[in-house]
Amino acid sequence: MIDQSGRTLSEAVLLAADGGATVVQLREKDCAGREFTERANIALAACRSAGIPLIINDRVDVALAIQADGVHVGQDDLPAMTARRLIGPDMLLGVSVKSVEQALAAQAAGADYVGAGAVFQTGTKVSSVIGIEGLKAICEAVKIPVVAIGGMSVQNGKEVVEFSGCAGVAAISGIFGESNVVDAAREFRMAVDAAKGKR
Amino acid sequence: MIDQSGRTLSEAVLLAADGGATVVQLREKDCAGREFTERANIALAACRSAGIPLIINDRVDVALAIQADGVHVGQDDLPAMTARRLIGPDMLLGVSVKSVEQALAAQAAGADYVGAGAVFQTGTKVSSVIGIEGLKAICEAVKIPVVAIGGMSVQNGKEVVEFSGCAGVAAISGIFGESNVVDAAREFRMAVDAAKGKR
Repeated sequence: MIDQSGRTLSEAVLLAADGGATVVQLREKDCAGREFTERANIALAACRSAGIPLIINDRVDVALAIQADGVHVGQDDLPAMTARRLIGPDMLLGVSVKSVEQALAAQAAGADYVGAGAVFQTGTKVSSVIGIEGLKAICEAVKIPVVAIGGMSVQNGKEVVEFSGCAGVAAISGIFGESNVVDAAREFRMAVDAAKGKR
Repeated sequence: MIDQSGRTLSEAVLLAADGGATVVQLREKDCAGREFTERANIALAACRSAGIPLIINDRVDVALAIQADGVHVGQDDLPAMTARRLIGPDMLLGVSVKSVEQALAAQAAGADYVGAGAVFQTGTKVSSVIGIEGLKAICEAVKIPVVAIGGMSVQNGKEVVEFSGCAGVAAISGIFGESNVVDAAREFRMAVDAAKGKR
């Protein structure tokens, strides 16, 4: 399994971790359970070797099957409260939100963090844009960490964190779309760390 | 949620049960977890009221979430052994198989039954055909019940059961594609019962 840049999944994970990624979320659309599980096991081995957690997107059963560190659900996936019940108290639960209302509901349902976005327009996923104001409102409303997602780049990452107070940023093409994944992840990490130092 | 004939999911389940269906399997392709769960809850309420079990296709997490009676996995879904581990010893586990080898593996992994097919060509699903000889070989190889699936009709159901010794037949269009679902289910049930009486 090779991405567009000729990297295997394992290589991509290790490069991102090498650059300072603190968590990896595996997102597989249009992928049946067997193949998803196989890819998840590959990603998990790489994450374990890098010492960072792996979060599985959507499929609670896949997360349970491979004993991932957590699962991330969107508003179209299993309800957060159901996911929490299935994974128990110890696995991480993330929830995608677009509004303060959704963020508060996720927090009440037992989410450990929310992914808020899309902050900006993105080529990865068709999604409505909440902007940095929408992100900031969510950050101010909930007690759990908020991760900014959607159109995040090294260029805008620092400003987004400074403005909103979000705990971190998540990127797909902003990291894996770059030819040098280690450098891209490192620049992201430095931008976020610098912004957090300022707040 | 209405099918092509204007029936709701709940109505379709109740009509099939009224005609003598002994189990309902809910299969939802291209349906996100939230909607699948909502539909599964509707089907479960109908099955409970009809006194028959509901089996969820593919998604072990959805089956667990709604506390269905069982889950059915194909060769592209979570491995049967993984599914069994996740659902525990009491929930029903069905596995789709095309060969004696797959059927024996499913039995060893803890399947309660196998769905073997496609026995005949079908419009519902693109699938290779095993024929009644392939079905019979599977029935003779395993100790667990074998359900014939794929192109099953009232016309061929009796002959298939008589020839192969399968425990039952499953149909999608053979029942829900008929204008009178109760009658179609009843004719299936009578054909199968008659064939089993003969063996």
